[in-house]
Amino acid sequence: MRLETDPYLTRYAQRVQGMSASEIRALFAVAARPEIVSFAGGMPATSALDMEAVEAVAARVIRETGATALQYGGGQGRPELRRALVEVMDHQGVPAHADDLVITVGGQQALELIAKCFIDPGDIVLAEGPTYVGGIGALTSHQADIRHVPMDADGLQVDLLEERLHALAAEGRRAKFVYVIPNHQNPAGVSMSIERRLRLAELADEHDLLILEDDPYGLLTFNGDTLPSIRSLVPSRVIYVGTMSKTFAPGVRTGWIVAPRPIRDKLVLLREAADLCPSNLTQMVVEGWLTSQPWREQIKRFREVYRDKADTMLGALGDEMPDGVTWTVPVGAFYVWLTVPRGIDTSDLLAKAISNRVAYVPGRGFYADGSGGNQMRLCFSYPEVERIAEGVQRLGELLHAELELVTAVYGDDAPQLRARRTGQASGLGG
Amino acid sequence: MRLETDPYLTRYAQRVQGMSASEIRALFAVAARPEIVSFAGGMPATSALDMEAVEAVAARVIRETGATALQYGGGQGRPELRRALVEVMDHQGVPAHADDLVITVGGQQALELIAKCFIDPGDIVLAEGPTYVGGIGALTSHQADIRHVPMDADGLQVDLLEERLHALAAEGRRAKFVYVIPNHQNPAGVSMSIERRLRLAELADEHDLLILEDDPYGLLTFNGDTLPSIRSLVPSRVIYVGTMSKTFAPGVRTGWIVAPRPIRDKLVLLREAADLCPSNLTQMVVEGWLTSQPWREQIKRFREVYRDKADTMLGALGDEMPDGVTWTVPVGAFYVWLTVPRGIDTSDLLAKAISNRVAYVPGRGFYADGSGGNQMRLCFSYPEVERIAEGVQRLGELLHAELELVTAVYGDDAPQLRARRTGQASGLGG
Repeated sequence: MRLETDPYLTRYAQRVQGMSASEIRALFAVAARPEIVSFAGGMPATSALDMEAVEAVAARVIRETGATALQYGGGQGRPELRRALVEVMDHQGVPAHADDLVITVGGQQALELIAKCFIDPGDIVLAEGPTYVGGIGALTSHQADIRHVPMDADGLQVDLLEERLHALAAEGRRAKFVYVIPNHQNPAGVSMSIERRLRLAELADEHDLLILEDDPYGLLTFNGDTLPSIRSLVPSRVIYVGTMSKTFAPGVRTGWIVAPRPIRDKLVLLREAADLCPSNLTQMVVEGWLTSQPWREQIKRFREVYRDKADTMLGALGDEMPDGVTWTVPVGAFYVWLTVPRGIDTSDLLAKAISNRVAYVPGRGFYADGSGGNQMRLCFSYPEVERIAEGVQRLGELLHAELELVTAVYGDDAPQLRARRTGQASGLGG
Repeated sequence: MRLETDPYLTRYAQRVQGMSASEIRALFAVAARPEIVSFAGGMPATSALDMEAVEAVAARVIRETGATALQYGGGQGRPELRRALVEVMDHQGVPAHADDLVITVGGQQALELIAKCFIDPGDIVLAEGPTYVGGIGALTSHQADIRHVPMDADGLQVDLLEERLHALAAEGRRAKFVYVIPNHQNPAGVSMSIERRLRLAELADEHDLLILEDDPYGLLTFNGDTLPSIRSLVPSRVIYVGTMSKTFAPGVRTGWIVAPRPIRDKLVLLREAADLCPSNLTQMVVEGWLTSQPWREQIKRFREVYRDKADTMLGALGDEMPDGVTWTVPVGAFYVWLTVPRGIDTSDLLAKAISNRVAYVPGRGFYADGSGGNQMRLCFSYPEVERIAEGVQRLGELLHAELELVTAVYGDDAPQLRARRTGQASGLGG
């Protein structure tokens, strides 16, 4: 695909300050050229799919059940698909019943419908900082007041969340919900530790919290492990969002929400006003995939592909990055979150990076509050593995050159130049 | 498909007064039984599609371009599809450029995005009365104040529209836009005459109006004729909505908006917040259909199927309906709008109708203001042609019995019992 048509990038472009959306769109259009290594778009490696199997499934769906596949369907989504998705969640240890699911147009529509359902203008949402740009987009389009809670290598800093909850209570205010991506977080590339999940579940009970658990990557831990979902710990307090975009394919635009019955009913009505119903055709392709194909094997294959790409990127970062640059170490999914010394602005740097034939997403897009100016997201899922080291090398050259400039301005003892190389004691940089 | 999963019906169910949504859902669930002839759901006859051709197209899309078809796409929709849809519009005489299109999840998402883009709470929208239930749903979900303008056998009564415009101007108010379905209107089954289209275009200029032209059925005139679109008459004042749901298949969930550039840009941003992007897979199936298959022939086939069904229904109505019942005479698409004497409430009557093994949609769903209580929509597109007369006969028996009751209450000279059998001098009844 050509990157200028990547909707993730246009989202980022809207959120990156200091450049107009059209300037950044133009830059990413250039970034789509084959000579550029792009770590920008968060796209899965669809080339790793068993395409013959997908073709056979789609052909059979139309041949055997075409009059249904091409007709309108129900607003909640097909019962057969909902049952199959319950098995996918079961594979990950996420408890759910098919009646409680609403099928959505990818995870993005799930977030949009939940925002439309819950948010009145000015409502507070607590979210990890940084967090998913599409989540920020859906929430702010309904005028939520997003307040970030910092993360570190063990994910959301739940002790800081607790401080925020107490501070809000002291003001007589409440958060409408807490938005978390516990597994292989986008963009931070870290997961919430078990201890913190347990504590988050306790806090939910103590503070009567609603938690929005967004989980696109839970099955993509490189070693196959899964951590307990927040939903498995406090099911009645969690609205859970899943998607087939990363474990099968984004092109089928199939996500889902698991919600308690009264909320589910309201979400179905909102979805019917939004687009009537999901596509029966794509739903039945996903059903066919999940009921007739070895989808667990396909997920293993994706894990291997992404682990190889992550290893390559992490190795190259160790080799190429100058002192003062830090990054997270993912154990699953797609992303590395990289922090550069404060004298460097990653939005400003993007044009130079693209001239240097490498692209990334500047960090500001992942905060609602303008933070992240010295950070960037590197996505390793899409580029071919043999081009990843090349891209990191180009980025390294660029950052070496920029750091010479920073050193010239701040001197050798600038504190940020003494930051550790990997991991983070107290946050993901910033 | 099973009717209880028809999202059209759940929409209606929400809008029909006097019964709870769950009661009407339960009724329609019963209506899905095979012994019942349902004129309720507005579903196309997908069984008339060349299914082998669709299968071949879908298989080729995945075989030859699977990595793209299964990947994310751009928020505006694929340029290739937009170009193909320009040809579809050209076939109907609707002028457009591919750059000005936004691909949507069916016509419903088009209406939702336009409502989100334009409507502030309390904004006035002028709309035909009756009008599309999904349009009412999208507009009222953004708190529009919908004001209906009556129709007759020649469609929207443009002289009454002009009166409304003057009355609003006298109050110092304006309509945000005028929502019209000029061709084979849903639910009224009538089309706007050429004279009225020309006058509507003049009014748009005189009153600086924006027109939302919703056109799902323009290519489905039984004799193949097309009337000039409002867009062809005043292009700069019209936002045009199209869909492949009725000329190909609703299961691909593919509609589109044609809008001036600055509005188009805003709609793309709204759609990215709503669901990121349309499915590449379904877009490429539609592209393949439009570029490799005789889609104009398929539309001819649909016209023949619907003409036969309309003829059957209209013949049966003439044979079976008691005096005092009137109906519109469609020359295309899916619908007959039927008016019964005022003593009969079509919402109340629905349970009896279903007991009598025939279903329809009560008229109130098609008005924002509670009108339509003595009206119903009969959709002839989906039932097999041989069952249509049977269904009309059952409805006729029921209405004969109800009218005996009305006559007993009002006496023989109740004015509604003297109404003409077909056509309407001053409106579609009510």
